[in-house]
Amino acid sequence: MQEEHRIEKDFLGEKEIEKNAYYGIQTLRAKENFDITNTDISLFPTFIKSLAKVKKACALTNFELGDLNDRQRDAIIQACNEIIDGKFHDQFIVDPIQGGAGTSTNMNANEVIANRALEILGEKRSAYHIIHPNNHINMSQSTNDVYPTAIKITLYELIYRLKDSLRYLRDCFHEKAHEFKDVLKMGRTQLQDAVPMTLGQEFKTYEVMIDEDIFRLRDAQAMLKEVNLGATAIGTGINTKDSYQRKAISNLREVTGIDYVSAGDLIEATQDTGAFVHISGILKRVAIKISKICNDLRLLSSGPRAGFNEINLPKVQPGSSIMPGKVNPVIPEVVNQVAFEVIGADVTISMASEGGQLQLNVFEPIIAYKLFTSINMMRRSFYTLADKCVKGITANEDICMEYILNSVTIVTSLNPILGYETCSAIAKEALATNRRVYDIVLEKELFTKEELDKLLHPKNMVHNYSSVL
Amino acid sequence: MQEEHRIEKDFLGEKEIEKNAYYGIQTLRAKENFDITNTDISLFPTFIKSLAKVKKACALTNFELGDLNDRQRDAIIQACNEIIDGKFHDQFIVDPIQGGAGTSTNMNANEVIANRALEILGEKRSAYHIIHPNNHINMSQSTNDVYPTAIKITLYELIYRLKDSLRYLRDCFHEKAHEFKDVLKMGRTQLQDAVPMTLGQEFKTYEVMIDEDIFRLRDAQAMLKEVNLGATAIGTGINTKDSYQRKAISNLREVTGIDYVSAGDLIEATQDTGAFVHISGILKRVAIKISKICNDLRLLSSGPRAGFNEINLPKVQPGSSIMPGKVNPVIPEVVNQVAFEVIGADVTISMASEGGQLQLNVFEPIIAYKLFTSINMMRRSFYTLADKCVKGITANEDICMEYILNSVTIVTSLNPILGYETCSAIAKEALATNRRVYDIVLEKELFTKEELDKLLHPKNMVHNYSSVL
Amino acid sequence: MQEEHRIEKDFLGEKEIEKNAYYGIQTLRAKENFDITNTDISLFPTFIKSLAKVKKACALTNFELGDLNDRQRDAIIQACNEIIDGKFHDQFIVDPIQGGAGTSTNMNANEVIANRALEILGEKRSAYHIIHPNNHINMSQSTNDVYPTAIKITLYELIYRLKDSLRYLRDCFHEKAHEFKDVLKMGRTQLQDAVPMTLGQEFKTYEVMIDEDIFRLRDAQAMLKEVNLGATAIGTGINTKDSYQRKAISNLREVTGIDYVSAGDLIEATQDTGAFVHISGILKRVAIKISKICNDLRLLSSGPRAGFNEINLPKVQPGSSIMPGKVNPVIPEVVNQVAFEVIGADVTISMASEGGQLQLNVFEPIIAYKLFTSINMMRRSFYTLADKCVKGITANEDICMEYILNSVTIVTSLNPILGYETCSAIAKEALATNRRVYDIVLEKELFTKEELDKLLHPKNMVHNYSSVL
Amino acid sequence: MQEEHRIEKDFLGEKEIEKNAYYGIQTLRAKENFDITNTDISLFPTFIKSLAKVKKACALTNFELGDLNDRQRDAIIQACNEIIDGKFHDQFIVDPIQGGAGTSTNMNANEVIANRALEILGEKRSAYHIIHPNNHINMSQSTNDVYPTAIKITLYELIYRLKDSLRYLRDCFHEKAHEFKDVLKMGRTQLQDAVPMTLGQEFKTYEVMIDEDIFRLRDAQAMLKEVNLGATAIGTGINTKDSYQRKAISNLREVTGIDYVSAGDLIEATQDTGAFVHISGILKRVAIKISKICNDLRLLSSGPRAGFNEINLPKVQPGSSIMPGKVNPVIPEVVNQVAFEVIGADVTISMASEGGQLQLNVFEPIIAYKLFTSINMMRRSFYTLADKCVKGITANEDICMEYILNSVTIVTSLNPILGYETCSAIAKEALATNRRVYDIVLEKELFTKEELDKLLHPKNMVHNYSSVL
Repeated sequence: MQEEHRIEKDFLGEKEIEKNAYYGIQTLRAKENFDITNTDISLFPTFIKSLAKVKKACALTNFELGDLNDRQRDAIIQACNEIIDGKFHDQFIVDPIQGGAGTSTNMNANEVIANRALEILGEKRSAYHIIHPNNHINMSQSTNDVYPTAIKITLYELIYRLKDSLRYLRDCFHEKAHEFKDVLKMGRTQLQDAVPMTLGQEFKTYEVMIDEDIFRLRDAQAMLKEVNLGATAIGTGINTKDSYQRKAISNLREVTGIDYVSAGDLIEATQDTGAFVHISGILKRVAIKISKICNDLRLLSSGPRAGFNEINLPKVQPGSSIMPGKVNPVIPEVVNQVAFEVIGADVTISMASEGGQLQLNVFEPIIAYKLFTSINMMRRSFYTLADKCVKGITANEDICMEYILNSVTIVTSLNPILGYETCSAIAKEALATNRRVYDIVLEKELFTKEELDKLLHPKNMVHNYSSVL
Repeated sequence: MQEEHRIEKDFLGEKEIEKNAYYGIQTLRAKENFDITNTDISLFPTFIKSLAKVKKACALTNFELGDLNDRQRDAIIQACNEIIDGKFHDQFIVDPIQGGAGTSTNMNANEVIANRALEILGEKRSAYHIIHPNNHINMSQSTNDVYPTAIKITLYELIYRLKDSLRYLRDCFHEKAHEFKDVLKMGRTQLQDAVPMTLGQEFKTYEVMIDEDIFRLRDAQAMLKEVNLGATAIGTGINTKDSYQRKAISNLREVTGIDYVSAGDLIEATQDTGAFVHISGILKRVAIKISKICNDLRLLSSGPRAGFNEINLPKVQPGSSIMPGKVNPVIPEVVNQVAFEVIGADVTISMASEGGQLQLNVFEPIIAYKLFTSINMMRRSFYTLADKCVKGITANEDICMEYILNSVTIVTSLNPILGYETCSAIAKEALATNRRVYDIVLEKELFTKEELDKLLHPKNMVHNYSSVL
Repeated sequence: MQEEHRIEKDFLGEKEIEKNAYYGIQTLRAKENFDITNTDISLFPTFIKSLAKVKKACALTNFELGDLNDRQRDAIIQACNEIIDGKFHDQFIVDPIQGGAGTSTNMNANEVIANRALEILGEKRSAYHIIHPNNHINMSQSTNDVYPTAIKITLYELIYRLKDSLRYLRDCFHEKAHEFKDVLKMGRTQLQDAVPMTLGQEFKTYEVMIDEDIFRLRDAQAMLKEVNLGATAIGTGINTKDSYQRKAISNLREVTGIDYVSAGDLIEATQDTGAFVHISGILKRVAIKISKICNDLRLLSSGPRAGFNEINLPKVQPGSSIMPGKVNPVIPEVVNQVAFEVIGADVTISMASEGGQLQLNVFEPIIAYKLFTSINMMRRSFYTLADKCVKGITANEDICMEYILNSVTIVTSLNPILGYETCSAIAKEALATNRRVYDIVLEKELFTKEELDKLLHPKNMVHNYSSVL
Repeated sequence: MQEEHRIEKDFLGEKEIEKNAYYGIQTLRAKENFDITNTDISLFPTFIKSLAKVKKACALTNFELGDLNDRQRDAIIQACNEIIDGKFHDQFIVDPIQGGAGTSTNMNANEVIANRALEILGEKRSAYHIIHPNNHINMSQSTNDVYPTAIKITLYELIYRLKDSLRYLRDCFHEKAHEFKDVLKMGRTQLQDAVPMTLGQEFKTYEVMIDEDIFRLRDAQAMLKEVNLGATAIGTGINTKDSYQRKAISNLREVTGIDYVSAGDLIEATQDTGAFVHISGILKRVAIKISKICNDLRLLSSGPRAGFNEINLPKVQPGSSIMPGKVNPVIPEVVNQVAFEVIGADVTISMASEGGQLQLNVFEPIIAYKLFTSINMMRRSFYTLADKCVKGITANEDICMEYILNSVTIVTSLNPILGYETCSAIAKEALATNRRVYDIVLEKELFTKEELDKLLHPKNMVHNYSSVL
């Protein structure tokens, strides 16, 4: 046993740790205490890296303030850099859903960095009198400032990448809007035939929607730049030196390349999860819109014989284990499900946020877990939607045009001239006799054929009417 | 002033009450404290009546135990009976959303009953030394047993009526299922053409769905029969006599005609809102299904020219202020919205339930408010859906049949004979050439015309295939 | 009958209307079709006024374009102005939850304005050949641009007032933060004693939180300024003249005094409900934070003898029908419930938004209904919270100080000097022996009494520690 | 390349498959199409086994009906049995969140079983003319009956195990209820002191709550026994023989040992997700209650010096990286978070269910994913709560008793004798003078000391009062 394990202790007792593990007793306790998701925080590499960045910024600051010596600093910084480079992530073994407001995650980072720093110095694991997880790695820090700061850095990066995926998807819709700009079709409100438009206009809508969402994400991202590093336990900055907080934020900017700033009131910032709720609300907004777009794509491609059949989605896999030749809109379908996931996650996050008490919200771990998961799923699904669906969409122009010519509500364009009642009577007759509006109006000699050809030409109905008459 | 008001006092001070008001100081305080919904509890007459029934059962019990005299009993019972008959509801003026776990509602009832009983006895309002809101009307009671008991009685009654509305709606679908039993049509999965069925089968589905929901509501209703009357403040039954609780439940059964029983553990029952969450979950289940049905009705009636157009919904109002002749599926649309309301209410109720602490859930008022509102909206909307929509639905048989004949996936029925690959090839050809499966298969001489007429007859595809070959 | 009613007809048939009613046949049909909430849209006077403002702006525009004459314009404008002044609201009788995407609400406005305008002209009700609900009042308009524009105008105004209520509440917390600035107390994380702070800092947190929320509401409000007036049926502007849309927006600015602008893409703007989802998300954010604050107030005032008892909330009503002298935190409790309502409403709104299809979201009525209701409830509850609770809060200074002196975790401030392990041992001993940290440290002679008095003085722990040593 | 890969084709083209993979082209397409969760369905071994059980039951049935020969049957059954024994799960590689209503999962099973069966027969992979994924493994089946049936079998098993965890947790509370049966303490309503009870009664409540939930889970489980096997594509049983469905269900009972029955209406059963919504509602109910219990445990153990401090939770890990000696209630905290997850999942499931259209709910994959995940998280967290928290809870009897003696609301027990007003006055005096009720009442000579000792003895207040006087 003595060859495979080492012993560590804390104020609750001692435990055997795997000899070569970089983590220590508190990580192991947490690992044993929390077996919820069957995963660990290494699921989110960006988060592990963000933790290391925070630790690095703090170590630099403590050195500047004379509380770490050169040797300690160099070892700690090197350990942090290695983690930032993607090493040792397998040592981050605690469950992302955990009690304790992230203390286990923070201690996992403290212990891994301490032991790796010791190794760099040629010292043994657990030689904490030289470099201690709490006294040196966590110096001037508390979970309650380090953990939310690392979450914000992670979210900033993840949203950056989410916006990339949205831009990519937007551009695909832009291409299609251009491609379909001359395809005339019926617009529909409440699933009932309304008035003509172009398929290009329809796809342009999706481009515009997504573009707005990118703006909203950008706004939300800005909120993430306010961090509470230096707040320590409850925001009073207990156990920090006067200039520590200012320097730590400055070093964080240096380390991350992002212009993070200090929250205005650190006590407020330490307990408040408003920014997370806000981000979640924006993610929900994005999800709802993309889901609506996917619903539309499924509707427009319904059929092929007993549906709208205005567009064709690319065929990416056989649709049925029993019905040969069937192909289903599987890509929009999977994106819808991601949207439902995100909307549900928003409720989880709302409850977690509402449940915060007094000087801390202890439920930050699940807030982070849901946000990270939602964003990752969204990003993957948006690229999927773009590449496997939108890019390959084609239009059935003839079908689209036929719908217009057969439609009853194109009578709308005669409204300003004939009035609502006369037009209603024409519509009623068209429906009752199963005929076209054009033929009925012509027959009634309400206009000459030339006038009517102009008035009822679909092309003249896809914008305001002054140009017609 | 002395002519228009009377003075009442409690341990916080005194207040002027409108001279003829039956309510007293505590009601007035509550009215002033809670101005949230701009309504009052008289919005729910069934609830007011249920409160009076509980008060009546308790008064009978207290008399039996010798704690009220004949005169007090008679006056209190008469006052309760009058409220049960619908009188004095305008005296119930407190906001349904209130702090205090319903104490204001309970005191509103206590004060109205006390003052009306005093009036019956020829006494002046506020002569509480004769009949006191707390000492007599609320004798052996606490808000914490009276209030949830009254909520349960109300829900029992409201769900009874909700089931009636569902039965009515179910029967309408049953009629339509029968009427459409021979209308052949394409079934659709994932909005893509699948295999044939009858419109009767489609509507039968809705009948069966609703029938199941009625059963689930019945089960849930049974849970409402467990009440905590006699629990008083926290379930220990403090301030009640030994046999009080048993007798009170027995009197409640007598008064209501429903076989209520005592909860097994009164401390648990006093703090637990599980039954309410359960009911809410069942309401949500019902709402989700009805919403799905409405979505289907809107899809099936989409068009009329550029949609599915398999069925016609009754035209109940012009659909557009600008598009003449347009008619929209407004009835299913409003029912969808009721469903969204109910699903949102379930989240509200879940949070309120989760927020309960220790011996009481202080958020029962909003739980009751949301449940009452959800059920009332649902009931009204189900009758609306039945009368203004389902009853008048008609089928477009020719369109339905045309979809089948044109469909590609009817090739499915040849699958057991030709195998998945051959059928896939036929389907592919049909799609590529825009032809019918029937013609392609006939051309390939894979079957005789007689065989094919049998194999591909839609009628033979709406049940299992043994009867065909 | 002929004396009490007049007859109106539309393309679905004719109906008797109450003779003096200003509304017409379509309003009546809608009234009969939608019986869901048992209320009507006059519940929201700001909304009725906003509708009239939109109608006024459109009438001015149609006149400028030569499509209404002087007489028509003057009568219509006067009718609109009267409604804006609060008159005729009782004529707005349709249910706020309705099918048809708001057409019934729009037609209710069209009919009331038409008939009132006719009356002003000395004409009979229903003389629609002179002024017609569709042809004149709704000229160049569709429900699909008028209705969402009116909703946005309403929300803009309601949020303006909501911010006022938040500012009022914030200022109350500001006062208390100042009042309690010298009250030392224990900060708590995870309901466990943490490190000292002041009660002023705690209340300052609430001030800061609310202040941020006001900023977020302001941002969200800005989004409401983008309207789709001029989009008509689906955003293509069918049936409008070239310059109509620009002029209509300009007139809307004039009429409302708010600088509304046109949405960039009217087709997108007509179907998109992103702004409403966004607003709802912000309202939820506000609700969550206020709920958290209320949870804190209830915790801090728990007791009085078996709880934290650090602060006293004003006694606004007796707390129990059975327990004399009990007073409960009823005001925070009712505000919590409003928060749950708002959070549930956000789910309803999310589902309604996700359910939009193609060129329109038919579920806007419930979106508007929930937003209006949420904001109204929040505003009322915030004033209640400020006036009936926060303003009267007092502190129990002695109890607060006693908690600090007894606390174990004040040892934290010795951490930078003694290290985590030594401090842990002291803490452990304090807990085991039920003694004070001060006494143990002194006994161990780790510091002189002078040093310790400085190090462990609560006042020196409520900010960073450099000033101490 | 030809050595490492084999080629398969379907009607969309051909693809290279890893030579030794058991899955085939459709699995591979799905793997490429759906990259959402970064996991695969092998995450849920019970589900993989359930799929194999269904496939086995169907193969047995097809053999009985003469549609598979001995050799095919034996190979298929052996392949299924191996999967049921836990083998080949690494071949189930499709993402649990997928479009296509589970077709990819079904085809993954079909392909793995086919290729393993071929291997058993000594045939090469992809020799589908001998055993074909669609024609043989999926014979008489569709994803639309196989997939939901496998989900129900999985849920039945998972809920069985969830109940075990709840029973275990319940028994832990039972032990504590017994252990604490004589510990007198204050009951609290609305966080304010109410009337006395025992700590045993408080813990008994949790036992009873959980017991009820087990009953509700049992009821819900019963609903899972209704399966739609034999429904094939849309419930009409297309491509099945007359007796197939009956025999298939019978074989399923045999294979699983559970008495599954056929749904009454297979068309309804194929599109309906009511049972899943129902289960989710029950899971939410359970989660809400356990969360409430955890909130209570955190409150009751708050402090230790500045909180309630009535009970001590076991110390399972150091609570803070900065505050020495701090121990937090991390186990209840993590269980709270699981509850929030489950409540959010219910919204996701509700939306997915509501989104079903016509003959199928295409969103079953996420419904299954969320239900499986919720149950697994709950089960793990309940064992954690039991073992790492409840079992080790101890009581602080002296503190509990002190709270009673100091309390003001114990005056409640004098209410039936002195009346509400007199008691209120005593309470008021006790609060104002910071004295005990006992002393004040004695001083006023309202009772003899003997009477008072009896009336105000806490032991006499924890049940109804008749036994006292």
